Amino acid sequence: MKLNEIGEDAVVEEITRTLRLDERVEIGPGDDCAVVHFGPNLQLLKTDCVIEGIHFLPDTPARAVGWKALCRNISDIAAMGGDPLDALITVAVTSDRELVWLTDLYAGLNQAAAKYGVNLVGGETSRSPGPAFISVALTGKVDKERLVTRAGGKLGDRLYVTGRLGGSFPVKHLSFEPRLAESRWLTENFRLHAMMDLSDGLGSDLPRLAKASGTGFEIDFAALPKNENCSDEQALTDGEDYELLFAVSEDHGQKLEKEWRAVFPELPLSCIGRLTEAKAEPFSRPGYDHFR
Amino acid sequence: MKLNEIGEDAVVEEITRTLRLDERVEIGPGDDCAVVHFGPNLQLLKTDCVIEGIHFLPDTPARAVGWKALCRNISDIAAMGGDPLDALITVAVTSDRELVWLTDLYAGLNQAAAKYGVNLVGGETSRSPGPAFISVALTGKVDKERLVTRAGGKLGDRLYVTGRLGGSFPVKHLSFEPRLAESRWLTENFRLHAMMDLSDGLGSDLPRLAKASGTGFEIDFAALPKNENCSDEQALTDGEDYELLFAVSEDHGQKLEKEWRAVFPELPLSCIGRLTEAKAEPFSRPGYDHFR
Repeated sequence: MKLNEIGEDAVVEEITRTLRLDERVEIGPGDDCAVVHFGPNLQLLKTDCVIEGIHFLPDTPARAVGWKALCRNISDIAAMGGDPLDALITVAVTSDRELVWLTDLYAGLNQAAAKYGVNLVGGETSRSPGPAFISVALTGKVDKERLVTRAGGKLGDRLYVTGRLGGSFPVKHLSFEPRLAESRWLTENFRLHAMMDLSDGLGSDLPRLAKASGTGFEIDFAALPKNENCSDEQALTDGEDYELLFAVSEDHGQKLEKEWRAVFPELPLSCIGRLTEAKAEPFSRPGYDHFR
Repeated sequence: MKLNEIGEDAVVEEITRTLRLDERVEIGPGDDCAVVHFGPNLQLLKTDCVIEGIHFLPDTPARAVGWKALCRNISDIAAMGGDPLDALITVAVTSDRELVWLTDLYAGLNQAAAKYGVNLVGGETSRSPGPAFISVALTGKVDKERLVTRAGGKLGDRLYVTGRLGGSFPVKHLSFEPRLAESRWLTENFRLHAMMDLSDGLGSDLPRLAKASGTGFEIDFAALPKNENCSDEQALTDGEDYELLFAVSEDHGQKLEKEWRAVFPELPLSCIGRLTEAKAEPFSRPGYDHFR
């Protein structure tokens, strides 16, 4: 059976059935980050990659590729309520690649690292016969009180989305800002039940949050925040929004909405639906699947 | 200027000149692992990749590829005197890859994880138009008293190598055992001045250790431990030996050699030379360079 006959979620499920995990692991694969005990602290761990021809094009400025490669991971750390710490960078390129491409890539990585307080502590450069490949692994720390997973959503919770969705290509996916400050404020001031970042599109990601929480969901399409000239379909399936999706009780939601406007006046926060009883067929329009 | 006109060490030097690093970073790029403060502890961080057509062949059993991908990183953790903890796996393959290849890859990763006490806490699978690419990031912990870098070698130190060198292809590079138990014993019982693992070949790696320590070196070629049918040249340049190279004072060296034979009777330990005054031209036969 080939990967494209199965689809990403089933592939991941197949792989993760048998992983070696001991008691130090608080949360293993399946959430935005892994959570492990390290000494007296909780550590977040995340890895993600960008590949030429898939996540960026041969003529995409290398600086933007570097920015994107690191910020994708920062977005996942934010989605768990954590702060990013140290990044490891692996770059594989053909050996006739120009040095300036590599230094531009690192300029973008450094720019994001400086802005979000990340150390670029190490990495690996290798030649490859194939397309350029950049993999970033990122550690973070999280307070136990601030940790938010995908799994804590409760029946009747309001669902919120930051920013606007859809139309991330060709520009926004290269210059987005991970919602780190927003996540800090949210997790310091409210008891969020569940959270994740939107990377594959709301249409793929929301069913994952609902499944992890053991609920269904309904979407209020009239409230869906869309980027200019985007259809509902695009808002659900384009992907690479890197916005936060979170679930919070009705009561907290009302208070949160009001305060949000004062703290982040420029960034929309939209109540896009609710968590409901689990349904047999949660959603007919999927988002992005890596293997299909 | 293209990467293959410059060579790996110069490329790495160019990249690492400007990295964002704050005071939490004890050791940044340039050693086997990065070392960072995390809470009251020291954490080791390492990333490394294997690429189809470079580090393994299309017909290499996927289980062996998984073993190798994780064990390369474990070898680097061992080379700093640390213990491995948690791994993140990134796999990029064409979407028509067979699922069984991926599950075999993970069987190899799990086998190494179980043997060396590593958790496989997360990862990422992505489609790629190019050759199969597996990147592994690994964390570890290290006691301050056991931490050994490349930089502490002293004039007159004896240089030791575990095991035998050369001829790692086509078999040993897929089934080697990282020298974790040996590193634990060495760092618990002796004050090593410097250590690293041999991945690019002694001919490339020893000059790096000497340069980091601000010394030169001399090799006793008669004492070079070689795998069957290997020339001196191969022992220096084949690479992928994943043995430990370390520097220790003359006195400690004698004691260490004797005790080693009792504890690890099956694994040779060879005194292959000394650290000397720095020389203008340390070595005329380089090992493996990723970009040449």
